[in-house]
Formats: sequence, C-alpha cells, structure tokens
Amino acid sequence: MEIANIDVNSYPGSEKVYIDGKIHPVKVAMRKVNLTPTVTIAADGDRIMKPNDPVYLYDTSGVYTDPSVEININAGIPRLRESWIERRDDLEQLPAITSDYGRARENDKSLDTIRFASRYAPRRAKEGCKITQMDLARRGIITPEMEYVAIRENGQLAALGIESHITPEFVRNEIAEGRAVLPANINHPEAEPMIIGSAFRVKLNTNIGNSALSSGIEEEVKKAVWSCYWGGDTLMDLSTGDNIHETREWIIRNCPVPVGTVPVYQALEKVNGDVNALTWEIYRDTLIEQAEQGVDYFTIHAGALKAHAEMVQERLTGIVSRGGSIMTRWAVLHDEENFLYTHFDEICEILARYDVAVSLGDGLRPGSIHDANDRSQFLELDVLGQLTEIAWNHGVQVLIEGPGHVPMHKIRENMDRQIEKCHHAPFYTLGPLTTDIAPGYDHITSAIGAAQIAWMGTAMICYVTPKEHLALPSLEDVRTGVITYKIAAHAADIAKGFPGADIRDNALSKARFEFRWKDQFNLSLDPELAKRYYVESHEGDDHFCTMCGPNFCAMRITRQLVDDCAR
Amino acid sequence: MEIANIDVNSYPGSEKVYIDGKIHPVKVAMRKVNLTPTVTIAADGDRIMKPNDPVYLYDTSGVYTDPSVEININAGIPRLRESWIERRDDLEQLPAITSDYGRARENDKSLDTIRFASRYAPRRAKEGCKITQMDLARRGIITPEMEYVAIRENGQLAALGIESHITPEFVRNEIAEGRAVLPANINHPEAEPMIIGSAFRVKLNTNIGNSALSSGIEEEVKKAVWSCYWGGDTLMDLSTGDNIHETREWIIRNCPVPVGTVPVYQALEKVNGDVNALTWEIYRDTLIEQAEQGVDYFTIHAGALKAHAEMVQERLTGIVSRGGSIMTRWAVLHDEENFLYTHFDEICEILARYDVAVSLGDGLRPGSIHDANDRSQFLELDVLGQLTEIAWNHGVQVLIEGPGHVPMHKIRENMDRQIEKCHHAPFYTLGPLTTDIAPGYDHITSAIGAAQIAWMGTAMICYVTPKEHLALPSLEDVRTGVITYKIAAHAADIAKGFPGADIRDNALSKARFEFRWKDQFNLSLDPELAKRYYVESHEGDDHFCTMCGPNFCAMRITRQLVDDCAR
Repeated sequence: MEIANIDVNSYPGSEKVYIDGKIHPVKVAMRKVNLTPTVTIAADGDRIMKPNDPVYLYDTSGVYTDPSVEININAGIPRLRESWIERRDDLEQLPAITSDYGRARENDKSLDTIRFASRYAPRRAKEGCKITQMDLARRGIITPEMEYVAIRENGQLAALGIESHITPEFVRNEIAEGRAVLPANINHPEAEPMIIGSAFRVKLNTNIGNSALSSGIEEEVKKAVWSCYWGGDTLMDLSTGDNIHETREWIIRNCPVPVGTVPVYQALEKVNGDVNALTWEIYRDTLIEQAEQGVDYFTIHAGALKAHAEMVQERLTGIVSRGGSIMTRWAVLHDEENFLYTHFDEICEILARYDVAVSLGDGLRPGSIHDANDRSQFLELDVLGQLTEIAWNHGVQVLIEGPGHVPMHKIRENMDRQIEKCHHAPFYTLGPLTTDIAPGYDHITSAIGAAQIAWMGTAMICYVTPKEHLALPSLEDVRTGVITYKIAAHAADIAKGFPGADIRDNALSKARFEFRWKDQFNLSLDPELAKRYYVESHEGDDHFCTMCGPNFCAMRITRQLVDDCAR
Repeated sequence: MEIANIDVNSYPGSEKVYIDGKIHPVKVAMRKVNLTPTVTIAADGDRIMKPNDPVYLYDTSGVYTDPSVEININAGIPRLRESWIERRDDLEQLPAITSDYGRARENDKSLDTIRFASRYAPRRAKEGCKITQMDLARRGIITPEMEYVAIRENGQLAALGIESHITPEFVRNEIAEGRAVLPANINHPEAEPMIIGSAFRVKLNTNIGNSALSSGIEEEVKKAVWSCYWGGDTLMDLSTGDNIHETREWIIRNCPVPVGTVPVYQALEKVNGDVNALTWEIYRDTLIEQAEQGVDYFTIHAGALKAHAEMVQERLTGIVSRGGSIMTRWAVLHDEENFLYTHFDEICEILARYDVAVSLGDGLRPGSIHDANDRSQFLELDVLGQLTEIAWNHGVQVLIEGPGHVPMHKIRENMDRQIEKCHHAPFYTLGPLTTDIAPGYDHITSAIGAAQIAWMGTAMICYVTPKEHLALPSLEDVRTGVITYKIAAHAADIAKGFPGADIRDNALSKARFEFRWKDQFNLSLDPELAKRYYVESHEGDDHFCTMCGPNFCAMRITRQLVDDCAR
C-alpha cells in the first residue's frame, strides 16, 4: 500500500525554528511568526517604519511544516527520540514482536497490501528495570524528554532566553509527584515530547478512527496529520472497524504527537463484538500488541464495577461510554467483577515495561446534563482514585478521564472531587457539554464547559466536533473541533495566568488596531479562514473593515483622536 | 418597492399554540413540539407504545411560523398590541410625523420606489402623562405587556397551568424597580412583548444593518426575519449606508421582536460622516424621527466623556465602539463635553413620550483582552450609573451595555461592578470574547464569555457572528451567531436554575437514548442541520449512530444491560 503525501503546507508568514537544550542535545521545534513593521506618517509626510517583534508559538505540527524535511508517509516521519532511547541502558530491543495477535497479523500475507512497509523491532524494559518517566523523575533524573517539554512550555520566553518557573527540574518534580504526565512510549520515538498537567499549558486531544461504517486507512492518517497541523496535542485512535492493527501502525509511524487508544475496542473486535466472549487473555495480548506498536496511553475502564450496574437504571441516559458499557455488561453477564479491575496490577506491570501511561476511563460519565454528578459517576471516581495509587506504585503515569455532560453550576464539583479523590493526577475531560439541546453544535456547547473546567485545573480537554452524536467527523469537522478546543484551552491558559500566554493575543490586537491585516491573519488560529472571510467581502481599502464602512471605523476614528490630542 | 416573501417555514414537528391571559385578553404564542411514543418490545414480542409529553418552547419567530397567518412583507405583520394601545387614555395619535428629517423623506418623491407602502400616524404621550411601562409599573398597574411576558417566561409551566414565582405581579415589580426592561415603543405594536432582566430567561440580541459597502433593504428584512426564526430576542438595526430611514421602516413593520438602533450613526450620515459637523439639533431630530417609527430602544453613548479621551492612549486598541469614538472625537474637536451627556435630561424627556428604552452605550469598552477592566472602562461605567438614575427619574427604562473583550478571570469584576454602580439595571454585554487569537471563530471565543457572564446575572447577550472583525455577516452567519448565543443563554438559564429550563434538555436526551431520531432533531436548536448531518452519513439502521457502529453503541449496550439486570 502507498499513501499519497498529505497536503499540509507550512504556516503562512512563519518559519520553523529550533531551540537548543542546555542539558541534553535536544532541539525544540517552534513556529516563529514574522511580522510586518508598523507604518506611520510623520508631520513632514515621511513614512516611519517601526519593526514588530516576531511571535513564537507552541507548534504541534511536527516536521510537516518544516520545508527542510522531505515527508514520505510510506516511510514514516523521522524518529526524533531514537538516539535518546538508544543511549539508555535500561531498555532491550526484542528480536520480534511478542503478542500472539501481532505475530498472526505479521504472518498474514493477505495483509501485505495494506501493511505499513517499514517495521521496527520493539523495545521493552530490561527485566527488573524501572524505566518510565515517572520512575526516572522519582530518582531525580532529568530526561531529555523533560528538558524538551520545559523549553516547549516556555515558548516565546525560551526563544528569547527569559527564565520562568517552568524549569526542567520543575517538570521533573511534577512528573515525580504524579501531577503531570509525559506520555512517551519507548516504541513511539516519532512523537515530540509534551506534558499534561495543571501547571502547564492546557492540552487538547482529538479523536479519530474508522468505524465499521466508514473511512479507510488513508483517510485516518490524513485526519491524524490534519489534527496536528491545526493544533491537536495528542491523538486517540478509536478505530473499531477492520484492520485496526494496520491502521494504527500507519498512524503511529506518521504521528508527531502521543497516540492513545482504548484497547477494549480492539479486544471486542477480536471476538466479533460478542461481549460475553471477551476474556482477560485476549485483552492482555491486545495491550502487549499495542504497546509494542508505540501507543503512548491506554484508556482503561477499570473503575466501572459490577456493583454500579444497578445504579444505571436511575439514569436518563444510562451508560454512554463505550468501554464502560462493555465492561459493565461483561461483569453482569459473567456475574464476576470487571476483569480490568481484578487484573489491574498485571495491567500496570505490562504498561510499565513500555512506559505506556494509563488514562483511567470514566465508564460511568453522564451522557446528559440530567445525569451529571450522580451517585454512579462519583462512586466510580472514588475507584479511579484507588487505581491511581496502584498505578503509581508500579511507576505508571496516570490520567483521570472526566465528563461528559455537565451544566455549568455542577462543573466545579467535578474538579474539586477529582483533585481530592485522585490525589492531583491530571484530569482529562470530554468537554463537558453544558446543555443537550444543540446537536450539530456540540463543539460549542462543550467548549463553554471545557474552557471553565480547564481554567479550574483540568490538564487536557478532549475535543468534540460538530458531528458529535450524529456522525463521524470529516476532515473539516476535525479542523473545526481542534480550533474550537484551542480557543477553550488558550482562554484557560490566559485565565490561569500562564507565563507569556497573552503574547499572541496582544500581538494580534496590535496588528488589528494598526490595520496590519496579514499579521492579524498569520497570528490567528486559522489564518486561511480568517483571510478568506476578509477577502470575500473586501473591496480594496486596507484601512477599515467591511463591518463598519469608511465613516464608522472606530479604530480609524480613534487614531484621528490620538492625533487630535497630541496637537 | 415590493419585497419577495420570506421563505421561513413552520418548525418541524411543531405547532403554534396560544396561551390565554387571565387578567387581559392576551394570547401568548408558544411552539409546541409533538413527540413520538417510546416503543418497547415486551417479553411476548408485543410492541408497547408509551406516549411522550409534548414540549412547549419559547418562540421568537412571531407569526412567520403560524400557518394560519398569511404573510405579506409589503403590508407588514399584524399589529398585535394595537388594540391594547388604542384602549389607553394616556396616548394621543398625531396627525403626522413631527421630525424634520422624517417629513423631508416623506415628501421626497424619489423615494417612492423604495418606501414601505403603508404608513401609520405615530402616537405619543399626552402632555403631562407618564406612559412608560416603568411609570405604569410604579403606579401598581399590571399592563397587558406584563402579563404577556409572565406567561411567556413560564413557557411549558404556563402551558400546563403550573405556577412559578414569575407572576404578572413579579414582572411588574421587577420593572418598577428598574431590574428589568420591557422594551415596547407605542409605535411598534407589531412586537410581541418580551422582558430583559436577570430574574428572567437570558435574552440575545442580533445586529443587522447595511453599511456603505453592501446589502440592500430586502436582504436586511430577510436577515431580521431569519434572526427571529432562529431565536433572536431583539434586533439592532445598525445600518450606516444609504436609505437608513426607509430600511428601518421595512424592518420595524415586519419585526415581531423589539428593535434597537444607535441614533448617532444616522445623525452622522446626515452630516456626511463629518464628526465635527454633528450637532445636538440634528441628533435630537433623529431621536424623534426614529421614536415615531417605532424603535424600541436607543443605544446612547452619553458616558464617554471628554476627560476620558486622554486615557485612550494608555490602551492597546483605543476605542472600538463606533458611537464612543464618534462622541469622544466630537468632544475633543469642539473642546466641549459630549452633547449626549449635557443634553441627557432632554433626551430622556423625548424617550419617555414614546416609551423608548435607553441602552447606555459603553463607548469605552475594551477592544482587546489587554485593555479589559482598565481605568477608562470603569470610569465610564461610573458615569452610566449616574445616568441610570437620571433616566429612571424620567420613567425611562434603562439597559447598561458591557464589554467586549475580557479574559475569563476578569469577567466577574465586570458583573459585580455593574450591579453596584448601576443599581441593578439589566446588563447587556457583547460576548465578551475571552481571547483575541481566533478571528473567524469569534462567535465561539465570545460564547465562552457570554455563557459565564449570563450565568452571573447579565440579562441580555449581544451575539457575535463568525465574521466579526472581518466582514458583515451573511444569512448563514446570522444563523450560526444566533444558535451559538442561544446555546450560551440556555446554558446560563440552566445554571441559574430558571424554572423548567431543563425540560427541553431532558426530553431531547430521552429521545436520544431511545433512538427517537426525529424527536431529537425537532427538539434541537437547529433541526435542519442536525438532521442533515445525520442523514448524510446514515445507512439505514435507526438503532445506532454512525459514530460508534453496531457493536459499539454504548446506549444500545446499556439497554441490553438493563434487560440483563431485570432478568
């Protein structure tokens, strides 16, 4: 199989720059937006040009926007962390993949036509070695990944050599304490290190993935790259249709951000969708299969217990988490406890060997504002808190997933309880949607909730696209979803007072006031759209918008006013 | 001139119903959404049908969605309040319009081709009579308008005969105390009464209007009707181009919601955009001209004082209010105080005779998050508080306009100060936008802020469309803007605990859980879009969404689970 190259260009008016580390030989990619000068006319009629400083932006697009790197989807992107990993003495390279399923797929000739061509032997922790970023942080080690994210978080400040409180040591400590997660499977060296924690920039996750009904491998790889281009910080591959294994390989080998999955989806496909036939053994093999491909974090619904099943009948909309509904039904059918809960220690042992983080799924998240903050939701959260401690004992990094559908006045309780019950492990929420009456606009109903909960301390928000509840998102929906969540995340960064968060806003506002339209477009989250809207209705005069007309531009009148005052 | 009829259909699955008043012969329009029954299969295989109660929705669309009313844009819509007004003995009908400009336009034969054909003689308070809804409320009178809005606010509860604390007497008291505004110019009897106050449902205003650059009368009338169809509660005509007077007449005669304007825009057109040439006399004539056409509220920038002009230089983005920039510049050029401030008593005398409400404009609202909550913004707010007391002394109803661009952590101070300085007069904000980096998506950056400030007590939020800062909105942009702000307003109603606010959410969520797709669409804010998204990717099976595929539908699995538990 050959996939056509992705048509992602460099950002307009921008260049890719790399900031060097001081401890390790890391080069941290950023996007530098170059601005045009401010032009004023002096009393004698001379044009006076004042330069405007460039703006450095956090950049999730990887090498796709570096014109010096030749992109070849069929070979995968450069393996940034490979040399850092090679240097470690706590890892071993395996002669071959070790999962039964992975081997079966590898030996299946009929898959040759859809398989990603290059294969890499997987790595794993040497026996007895504790190798996760959390383990290393606890031992006081600042890894290259930690230094990378410290520089990355500082953004403009790092580019200008200005220090903030976010040092490599600060990063190390946040990871050691479990307050931040640095998802970095040793088998996904293509990913640029990033960090998820309330002390850092708010991150956003995008979901892609084919279902039995639609979309092929090529489209999913395109969505992955597209998501990174617009600003997605992590990517979950939620494929549930055919060829999940091969689709995932294509995505991971081309993905510059951490990749997450929900392994029970694939496990269920392996038993043809028969919940009753699911077993721990199949699930376990799936974990190993995916860990060796390079998945950086697994959503695991280990907190949805058998005892919760009865409570679901109190709800208006039952269980809306796919993983939660599968595991609860399994427990009821078997009259046994959820096997993800009973085998949680073993799960952590596997994850620890590859440095896969666990994202503890909220299988009982509310699916309507009616069900928000109810008994089953909060009982499950208590269990997630217990599981957090178990994972940390294994050195496994932990995220806690949260709702869902929550009206504004009930959001705060979600955050406060999560912090208390889950010991400051980073919270990762889906929205929440603040009303249920707007299918087709749930990116907006949920961005309203996401901005608020992120301001309160949620570390990562999972995007929602306009098609939520209705259909799978198209490429355009992915773009809309990502931009909408960039807005929510950035609004929260500003409200949190994150160092330098408002530099971009101020530069854009100054450009707006000075009618430097190109700079305004280039600094915006979606330069192409902003420019298109403008150009479509614009008729030649650069010095007022089409909104107000020539006599009514407040900014123009203000500029005259300033001149009047100065006289 | 003839305008083609507007293509607005009845809402799908809905009927127009009218609830009778008990005090006055008012008939309050609502939209009744009829639902399909819930179907379950019994153990013996029989289908069991359980009916679902209809849902009654607040309806801003006027007679446009009543199939029993024949719409003729060229004749205007029925004059709902005409008979209530005729019965009053405190009003007089004038033999002709009294403004100089209005008369000149009337006598200008060249305008015959664009003029709205039917003309009505304007009404005015009889000499010495205090006639505003506030005056009447203070005298203990419950007007038909007050009873209408009490029923309207109760919505479903009123339709079912359930009492809430929102009684006609409660409405009267809120208006008497200045905490709510019922905009109801006696010359706009076409408008259905509505109320703006923090004790009521959050309202949303839409802005339309041509500029010198674009759009004609027909397009503006279409936008007005379109805005009402999607849920706009009031409408501001911000036209600044040619034929403002005639455009406004067409809009008012066809508009079922209150109409607001910014009279200084037209006054400035009358002096060809020359700020220096503006005079109080021209402005005064404009107020009378518009009041006699039926404008329900005027935005008046009387709080932007000469002393504030200097402070603008401290800002990143100066003055972004058109009215504010005009009046500040006028004051500086003339070295005199803003004439709207010095003539404010006289302005109130005019407004009181027609029951035009004043919306005190925030001429110094911040135009970037950088300028939020600064000295000039809050100094102007203090002045608006003083003007509020003056207006109330004249019996003039008052709204206070607010920002603008405000990061989330600075929103609360805006609300708290407004309540304190402006004595609980209703707050009416534009957004606020919570970040400046997303031109093209400012409906979203601002909905995040609007939902929060509305929850805190803002009574009306002014919509922002995707084209904000870039271009004038198209019909599709108006739709997107209105729906986005309906979301923000409704999310706030739920968070405020407004009686019955969650009935629609719960009915939609129940329909979603039961796969009653049509009901889900019909209950949604945009039935057409929701259905379109669904149909485009749907392939025949009604019982799972395209999102998850047949094996992975959490709701379907839950239903199986409930069956399992019941066995």
